[in-house]
Amino acid sequence: MSQGKLSFIGLGLYDEKDLSLKALETIKESDYVFAEFYTSILSGSTIEKLEEICGKKITVLNREETENGTIFLSKAKTNKVSLLIGGDALTATTHVDLRIRAIQQGIHTSVVHGSSVVTAVPGLLGLQHYKFGRITTLVTPEKNYFPLSPYDLIKENKKQGLHSLVLLDIKTEKNQFMTAEQALEVLWKMEEQKKEHLFSKKDVICVVARAGSKQPLVKADTFENLEKQSFGPPLHALVIPGNLHFMEIEALQILADLPAPIAKKLQKV
Amino acid sequence: MSQGKLSFIGLGLYDEKDLSLKALETIKESDYVFAEFYTSILSGSTIEKLEEICGKKITVLNREETENGTIFLSKAKTNKVSLLIGGDALTATTHVDLRIRAIQQGIHTSVVHGSSVVTAVPGLLGLQHYKFGRITTLVTPEKNYFPLSPYDLIKENKKQGLHSLVLLDIKTEKNQFMTAEQALEVLWKMEEQKKEHLFSKKDVICVVARAGSKQPLVKADTFENLEKQSFGPPLHALVIPGNLHFMEIEALQILADLPAPIAKKLQKV
Repeated sequence: MSQGKLSFIGLGLYDEKDLSLKALETIKESDYVFAEFYTSILSGSTIEKLEEICGKKITVLNREETENGTIFLSKAKTNKVSLLIGGDALTATTHVDLRIRAIQQGIHTSVVHGSSVVTAVPGLLGLQHYKFGRITTLVTPEKNYFPLSPYDLIKENKKQGLHSLVLLDIKTEKNQFMTAEQALEVLWKMEEQKKEHLFSKKDVICVVARAGSKQPLVKADTFENLEKQSFGPPLHALVIPGNLHFMEIEALQILADLPAPIAKKLQKV
Repeated sequence: MSQGKLSFIGLGLYDEKDLSLKALETIKESDYVFAEFYTSILSGSTIEKLEEICGKKITVLNREETENGTIFLSKAKTNKVSLLIGGDALTATTHVDLRIRAIQQGIHTSVVHGSSVVTAVPGLLGLQHYKFGRITTLVTPEKNYFPLSPYDLIKENKKQGLHSLVLLDIKTEKNQFMTAEQALEVLWKMEEQKKEHLFSKKDVICVVARAGSKQPLVKADTFENLEKQSFGPPLHALVIPGNLHFMEIEALQILADLPAPIAKKLQKV
């Protein structure tokens, strides 16, 4: 019986061409290729385009099949198996859990990394990486479920002068991807509940849509100006700035169309 | 006169096969290809291997030539120019500054993202991304220069229960890349100066060496046990854990060889 292997492959940010040569090589050498798109998606690609570039049939797993893992873990005992994941590999707890279970079952594992929103978004905005605090994710509020923890986290970051990268809810199976427009609504609803004056409509917020694509939308403006806009197809992310260095303000003007009068006001703070 | 373009290309983590298909395509379409390796390096590759895979001559720029920018900015006015950068593009202030200057000179710019230590290291250790605080970088102490700010930053993260990703000094032109061994010495020297009991020799520290390679070294152990070890060729990075979730402790045991008795002790905290 030949030795199997399970490779966790980060597909990168946006489309099939974000695959690294290493990822492509590993996929091509695989006996079975699975993908999960519930923790992230390649919004600029399709499964057909991915299959074409990889020259392999790809089986897409839903959330339950991914978390359960039986389908690919059993195959990986004696076959080379790749599990494709949007963004970088192993950024979700599920992937780490799967890797641990594979190792515990005596399966050899490997990881191929991909580009990620975590570094792409600050870079596109020209904001300094070492000035970011904790990352948070906004989930779509439901009837009896409206977690306010992101508000506290952003507040904590801001208190320290730090920027907050805010990732947005992904519900692939319902084809729902929270937009920046919706995210602003959610943040405002949090403000109305908490009333701790974390957000005002005059605050500058940053939006990045379709990071990794040829023409990502990169925008900085006041909360109230952004509310009136729409930012096109997914994925979107926000950054809530902390204290901005004058070079960062200049970057937001040039890279993210921050209106000059608002930039001027920020420079004076 | 044809319209020029400057593309900032993130090469990814470790070797020439971390290039994305998009990066390769953009480089192949370029009239001139430059690279800078003073903000990061591809420690598993050589310029010759990169040139071979890209089918292009690559001009390596030193720090001064990169920051000055004249060489490639002037070419990019009428030619397609790629600037190759280790890791993700635009993670250093220099790159953002160059991009701004290019735009101000009327040059069209684009960005191709690459895999980065920022997501790779937490993933390889099985630590949860949203539990990381600010990133810091250790520099090699010199006679009259020993910045203690990383100590304060790690302390602030730890106070909030957060993990700290610690990147290590890169001095490519001197061929010096701070090792995890040296980093532990630097941290201890900080402790001896500050005496705020941030570190004890019994604390668990994590080391990742050669992230992105086929067999990265991934290790968690006590400060005193790690001090006795060496971790091979660069690049290295550290993580100073904050509060560890029991699943993270399990991950460190299985993915990073954290000795069982130490894991047991951590689980009790």
